[in-house]
Amino acid sequence: MKTIIRQGTIVSPSEIYEADILIDGEKIACIGRNLESEGAKVIEARGKYVIPGGVDVHTHMDLLAGNSRAVDDFYDGTVAAACGGTTAIVDHMGFGPDGCNLHYQLNEYHHLADGKAVIDYGFHGTAQHVNQDILDELEGMMEDGVSSVKVYLTYDRRLNDGEALQVLKRMKKLGGVTAFHCENHEVVEYYRNMYREQGCTSPYYHAKSRPNLAEAEAVARILSLARLAGDAPVYIVHLSCEESLEAVLDARKKGQKNIFVETCTQYLTLTEERYMDKDGLKYVMSPPLRTREDCERLWEGLAAGDIQVVATDHCPFNYGIEKQLGRDDFTKCPNGAPGVEERMSVIFSEGVMKKRISLNRYVEALCTNPARIYGFYPEKGILQPGSDGDLVIIDPKKEYVLTHDRMHSAVDYTAYEGMKLKGQIELVMQRGSVVAEGNVFKGKRGAGRFIHRRPHDNA
Amino acid sequence: MKTIIRQGTIVSPSEIYEADILIDGEKIACIGRNLESEGAKVIEARGKYVIPGGVDVHTHMDLLAGNSRAVDDFYDGTVAAACGGTTAIVDHMGFGPDGCNLHYQLNEYHHLADGKAVIDYGFHGTAQHVNQDILDELEGMMEDGVSSVKVYLTYDRRLNDGEALQVLKRMKKLGGVTAFHCENHEVVEYYRNMYREQGCTSPYYHAKSRPNLAEAEAVARILSLARLAGDAPVYIVHLSCEESLEAVLDARKKGQKNIFVETCTQYLTLTEERYMDKDGLKYVMSPPLRTREDCERLWEGLAAGDIQVVATDHCPFNYGIEKQLGRDDFTKCPNGAPGVEERMSVIFSEGVMKKRISLNRYVEALCTNPARIYGFYPEKGILQPGSDGDLVIIDPKKEYVLTHDRMHSAVDYTAYEGMKLKGQIELVMQRGSVVAEGNVFKGKRGAGRFIHRRPHDNA
Amino acid sequence: MKTIIRQGTIVSPSEIYEADILIDGEKIACIGRNLESEGAKVIEARGKYVIPGGVDVHTHMDLLAGNSRAVDDFYDGTVAAACGGTTAIVDHMGFGPDGCNLHYQLNEYHHLADGKAVIDYGFHGTAQHVNQDILDELEGMMEDGVSSVKVYLTYDRRLNDGEALQVLKRMKKLGGVTAFHCENHEVVEYYRNMYREQGCTSPYYHAKSRPNLAEAEAVARILSLARLAGDAPVYIVHLSCEESLEAVLDARKKGQKNIFVETCTQYLTLTEERYMDKDGLKYVMSPPLRTREDCERLWEGLAAGDIQVVATDHCPFNYGIEKQLGRDDFTKCPNGAPGVEERMSVIFSEGVMKKRISLNRYVEALCTNPARIYGFYPEKGILQPGSDGDLVIIDPKKEYVLTHDRMHSAVDYTAYEGMKLKGQIELVMQRGSVVAEGNVFKGKRGAGRFIHRRPHDNA
Amino acid sequence: MKTIIRQGTIVSPSEIYEADILIDGEKIACIGRNLESEGAKVIEARGKYVIPGGVDVHTHMDLLAGNSRAVDDFYDGTVAAACGGTTAIVDHMGFGPDGCNLHYQLNEYHHLADGKAVIDYGFHGTAQHVNQDILDELEGMMEDGVSSVKVYLTYDRRLNDGEALQVLKRMKKLGGVTAFHCENHEVVEYYRNMYREQGCTSPYYHAKSRPNLAEAEAVARILSLARLAGDAPVYIVHLSCEESLEAVLDARKKGQKNIFVETCTQYLTLTEERYMDKDGLKYVMSPPLRTREDCERLWEGLAAGDIQVVATDHCPFNYGIEKQLGRDDFTKCPNGAPGVEERMSVIFSEGVMKKRISLNRYVEALCTNPARIYGFYPEKGILQPGSDGDLVIIDPKKEYVLTHDRMHSAVDYTAYEGMKLKGQIELVMQRGSVVAEGNVFKGKRGAGRFIHRRPHDNA
Repeated sequence: MKTIIRQGTIVSPSEIYEADILIDGEKIACIGRNLESEGAKVIEARGKYVIPGGVDVHTHMDLLAGNSRAVDDFYDGTVAAACGGTTAIVDHMGFGPDGCNLHYQLNEYHHLADGKAVIDYGFHGTAQHVNQDILDELEGMMEDGVSSVKVYLTYDRRLNDGEALQVLKRMKKLGGVTAFHCENHEVVEYYRNMYREQGCTSPYYHAKSRPNLAEAEAVARILSLARLAGDAPVYIVHLSCEESLEAVLDARKKGQKNIFVETCTQYLTLTEERYMDKDGLKYVMSPPLRTREDCERLWEGLAAGDIQVVATDHCPFNYGIEKQLGRDDFTKCPNGAPGVEERMSVIFSEGVMKKRISLNRYVEALCTNPARIYGFYPEKGILQPGSDGDLVIIDPKKEYVLTHDRMHSAVDYTAYEGMKLKGQIELVMQRGSVVAEGNVFKGKRGAGRFIHRRPHDNA
Repeated sequence: MKTIIRQGTIVSPSEIYEADILIDGEKIACIGRNLESEGAKVIEARGKYVIPGGVDVHTHMDLLAGNSRAVDDFYDGTVAAACGGTTAIVDHMGFGPDGCNLHYQLNEYHHLADGKAVIDYGFHGTAQHVNQDILDELEGMMEDGVSSVKVYLTYDRRLNDGEALQVLKRMKKLGGVTAFHCENHEVVEYYRNMYREQGCTSPYYHAKSRPNLAEAEAVARILSLARLAGDAPVYIVHLSCEESLEAVLDARKKGQKNIFVETCTQYLTLTEERYMDKDGLKYVMSPPLRTREDCERLWEGLAAGDIQVVATDHCPFNYGIEKQLGRDDFTKCPNGAPGVEERMSVIFSEGVMKKRISLNRYVEALCTNPARIYGFYPEKGILQPGSDGDLVIIDPKKEYVLTHDRMHSAVDYTAYEGMKLKGQIELVMQRGSVVAEGNVFKGKRGAGRFIHRRPHDNA
Repeated sequence: MKTIIRQGTIVSPSEIYEADILIDGEKIACIGRNLESEGAKVIEARGKYVIPGGVDVHTHMDLLAGNSRAVDDFYDGTVAAACGGTTAIVDHMGFGPDGCNLHYQLNEYHHLADGKAVIDYGFHGTAQHVNQDILDELEGMMEDGVSSVKVYLTYDRRLNDGEALQVLKRMKKLGGVTAFHCENHEVVEYYRNMYREQGCTSPYYHAKSRPNLAEAEAVARILSLARLAGDAPVYIVHLSCEESLEAVLDARKKGQKNIFVETCTQYLTLTEERYMDKDGLKYVMSPPLRTREDCERLWEGLAAGDIQVVATDHCPFNYGIEKQLGRDDFTKCPNGAPGVEERMSVIFSEGVMKKRISLNRYVEALCTNPARIYGFYPEKGILQPGSDGDLVIIDPKKEYVLTHDRMHSAVDYTAYEGMKLKGQIELVMQRGSVVAEGNVFKGKRGAGRFIHRRPHDNA
Repeated sequence: MKTIIRQGTIVSPSEIYEADILIDGEKIACIGRNLESEGAKVIEARGKYVIPGGVDVHTHMDLLAGNSRAVDDFYDGTVAAACGGTTAIVDHMGFGPDGCNLHYQLNEYHHLADGKAVIDYGFHGTAQHVNQDILDELEGMMEDGVSSVKVYLTYDRRLNDGEALQVLKRMKKLGGVTAFHCENHEVVEYYRNMYREQGCTSPYYHAKSRPNLAEAEAVARILSLARLAGDAPVYIVHLSCEESLEAVLDARKKGQKNIFVETCTQYLTLTEERYMDKDGLKYVMSPPLRTREDCERLWEGLAAGDIQVVATDHCPFNYGIEKQLGRDDFTKCPNGAPGVEERMSVIFSEGVMKKRISLNRYVEALCTNPARIYGFYPEKGILQPGSDGDLVIIDPKKEYVLTHDRMHSAVDYTAYEGMKLKGQIELVMQRGSVVAEGNVFKGKRGAGRFIHRRPHDNA
């Protein structure tokens, strides 16, 4: 099957130009003026932006977190992603049973995703404990297309600094990326206990118990360990505040290389005042929402290229059910919020249309960089001959209000309810097939393929 | 006429990928895999780089400098450019008679270039004095396609700071760029007089009389004036040393925008030791060659994107004739050296092949940025549908020694004599026609067109 | 004659402690507990601060500026100084006739001051033009006790950069300090002409025509020249704004040594809003008053030790007479304002009592550093055995309102009218004799001695 | 008893001047010229420096470390200190039995020191575990004159970050200082295990297992915690490398206050090459010796005032006995080295005489600051009326070679054997009595008094 996207304004990390795109089968065949191809379906895109399909490298589909399970499985979650303009995800696999190895979880996740996902998907490994076997197994994971592993510095299955160092050293050798959830566990625990003892259990204290500096300290620490490991590639997930960004800039100024920074939609657009709302539990996530100043600093960092990626940490729990576990005690509330569906639209509107970031930067941070860093570019993340026919058409002139009833996720709310958006996604295509159009899902259960990722470029 | 460049590795400021390019008439029609077009001439480029035609925005063809005239007129000079992989120049018009207005020189230069140039060419205005008429005339110059003007802070026709400020303010209003030759005139004069009085007249004292700080001070000063003018777009020509680059970085750190920095081939690759050579007069130019440390700092700045453009300041005088005026006194030697022909090859070899800069950055600084900053992108500087069919094919596996007998400039030497180069330019095309192939000029006298430039993007 | 200052709280740049001071003749003999000395006069100082006599190294007594003469001669001006707690001044000699040499003015100033001044005084030379004779004469000036010379970068008798460089090089060799009035002359002229042409002639435009960046640029420039001269000792007079301070910090960060910075009382405490007052002419001085933010940044710089000296630029003209020349055109108003009498009190109250600077820093910047930098420490600027018996007793518990009727200067206003002050000067002693007590002058006409200054310590 | 120190050159943190000092009983009575006092003993000091008695705030007398006991008890150790020009120490109390409270150790240490010490001494508490009782007990410790507490981030009795935070918060409230031994425990453990497994057990691997970044990371972390605790006063003991100093400067640049930094004699003067010497075990201490570059950076930091204190971490073990435990395995070697006796001489010679630091800075960092930070200034650390008569006379013209046979410590080696020193301590006085003269101890067992320290000034 052939398709011609006619006269759209094509956007890459560095260019914006008008041209036609011819997709032949699953791949982009060529980009040019006045393309003709017999039998090709033609989609008019004049006056609209044509961008690469969105790439969200931080989701938690079907995650089992304690006693709660994230309510989007790989079908619902990827339908939501597709309708929101995202055509590839890399999911962070959850913790497995005590002592399980990395492949145990990989098998588990293939089981959860294969045959269900409607867009392409990869997995990040999770190092929930470290020993010689786990370190050795990292190589096999790379061979199996999982070229990144995540380490938590908080929660029960965190690693200590010596263990983290070992993972970094091994991944550096293998050319893989180590991703870190950075918060100082003992500091957070101290505040949580303190607030609980003082009877401060409302969602507001969730935020107060995880201060900026508890995150920034952990960021600085992990950058030191990566430095010790020979500038091992290190990826900071969901960086949320100014102090953390400063820690990154300090390290780079000292010459450290291979540092990658992700922030998420929510840290750019929502603020801690939400915790004082009646439905504050909706926003219980870690790190928590921060201040308006933090948001602005993150936008600046994104605009300057100091932050490489915007992802979502999509991990939805129903406000009416799971989230209510935290009603009387924020520490009981499962952490996480939906976002995979909102990202492309919200950042387009709040970032590009409000002139906080350029259109080029938008594409770079939401499409290109995530694929580059995690080893599946240029298949994904760019519109050029030979790349996958994954693209999104956005009409910048349309406006609408984001409401939950437009959403496809299984969860019962959106964190962005009522936000007025400029720019609307009209059509989403994956590997040459339309998967969403006019906010209606047009794809097929199980049409998504596992993304076998390669080692990191720069490593 | 149609041409297909088959299976080359196409390079843009952000991407590197393999594809075919179809040029239809003067323009790129499309880029894709396995392109076919009846009757098209096919040029095989497998295993080779296909980059946009080089853009050199700092040349001085046919320049009258005092009693000497630069020995390349617009024919010889552009033939040299073409053979060296450069398909567009923007020439800095020389000083005219006392009190002449801007159009006087523009007419003069059209007379010098039209019908002679073999590649496309534009002109920068030169503000050699300032009054209300000159300021008002700037608008007409913009309308006539000359959207930039140069100011000298040294030499007889320099402007003082109050005059420079007025030019900056007016150009800011018009959306034009003001280019500055930055050296502190009185400091340089002090040293020149001092050395002359001491009988220190060899070329070495040319360098000693123009210390790094005399340049850096002038850079800092002009950035202050641009800041005063509301961050007026300011372009530093031939920045040559570490201290000047630091002045730029300091200003940017304070939030100043619209600062553009050019360095030249020679400041990246040649050093002041040359002045002690027997033929040191060959290198008498302003600013002078600096130290090895300065070169390395400039490479770093280029790699980091702190320097936007590499140009040449091509201004050749015969070593055997004009340069000999300085035999007994460096102050009598006409300033300038050839370079328009060597730039693309020397920077490819010294920069890309020696891994000091990436291939993307090479294209950005030598092709894309100059066109972007000076208002003629995307016609020039990028390979994408709709752009001019200006391109260069480089074979990275070929090696050769750069010698004067390979050169096409009318001048009697090359400053890079004997340099071993990796990578060779195989073919150069302008607007769909081959203008050079295998170092042989294939174009036509007068085939170059005047580039009517637009206002600056960001202004 | 012997005096014991009993149980005061003695302050030095680093210590604060309670002790007695015994002054024997003109010198401090010893400092200790329970000192006894037969026949000594005892002054009780319990609960009060005893600090070194104030040192003001920027005054313009009896200055002839164009057609106006500053209204304090060396008698009136030093009486004002003495009553205000200042026991030594170094006066900036004004411009002499065209082409006059340095000693011409030195003789003139000895004539103006000798036999009149009531406190000790030195002179700074003024380089109003440069040639070989002037450069050679600098050595003789040093021998005659004038170990510093001032250069103006604006006004008719400014030096250009090449000339300034020569002065810096020579002074470096001699171990002297070169002081600079830093403003970019042509930029200021441009604005003055522009505003005049636009009919903007009120005092407010005096400030607008001398923007922060016109000062900061000149500061950066002169620091570059000092760097070129081998880190020649350079002293920035009346630094008034944040941008200038940043220029100094940038230079120091690059390793430049021997940079000294002076600000004045008015730049720390008064703001540009005054120019919109009915009596705005009172504040016409160069540089002009700046914003509240600039004041705060200067206080921070002073607190951090980035600014070494607080002086006054005391140069009074009667508001009712000379200042009225600017009534219809600010450019006609003689530049300058009184301040020698207010400095010690105003900075004590606004700085120390408002906790912007420590008491130690106060003494360092108003007493010790000026003497250190300019070569007459430890005779002045410190209370220690062997130093001159110059001291001030301040009662920190007293409060009063600063009004013109308290002042001793001949001028008809104070720029600080109505300011509520905490802390009052009770007694001022020079070389063992009381020169002021309870705001009454107790000294003698002509009792001041010329301070024969030595080369700069660090040079 | 009265003593006059005649015509010495007195040094304070900011002044250097010639005067006599009269000591009456235990206190300085006065400082002046030509002092006379009937019956006073006169000590001539013309041409010599008279400085405050040295203050060493990091010693470990009689320390029980695992199975080894530091070989200097409070008698031997303080005799060594006295002969070396140190007249006050603050000793870091060692770990007590599991679960013991703070006063348990305080009582123990009074028992160890009282009646033995020959110079004045204080104690730092040690928080070897944290609970509510310990936190509450800190107030009592303050009342008992122990206004500082130490936390270890490595070793068995380290605190975790949450515990450290609690100590900082409480100490901030009390006005006390928390001192930290900063090394990342798990990182060090990882390297130690790794090297041991690889059979790398020579002293050289002691250094390799404690990399600079393991220290710098811990410094940055603890500064973050102090920031969280409201800029609680934090004191970094034995900072040893460039990276750690940069972490401190970064924090200060971000506005953090109340950070105090100590380095030790050995980190300024000895380098890691020593570990490859035959007697490398002598230098096994934590942190280990670093590189020449680190030393130079520390000298610069000291000269600039970025480092406040030079102490010793005096903790001697006999090379012939205890140190030999590490013969086959560096991890078995008791950590520590002597130094209390060498500090004043070695830093005078290597610092002042080699012009790395000024004489003022020497006094500030070795005498004044330690007393100021830890709450016993101006009794100690300064020569001024009312202060204790603790002083040292140094003859800067004498030279000698430092050898073990000159030493008074009980240990069998000096780490500075063979170092050529310029400047010699001639006489040491405590509270008006000579305690050492010509390297002979003249004091009395038990003459030292406990220093009841006050809260920290700035807190």
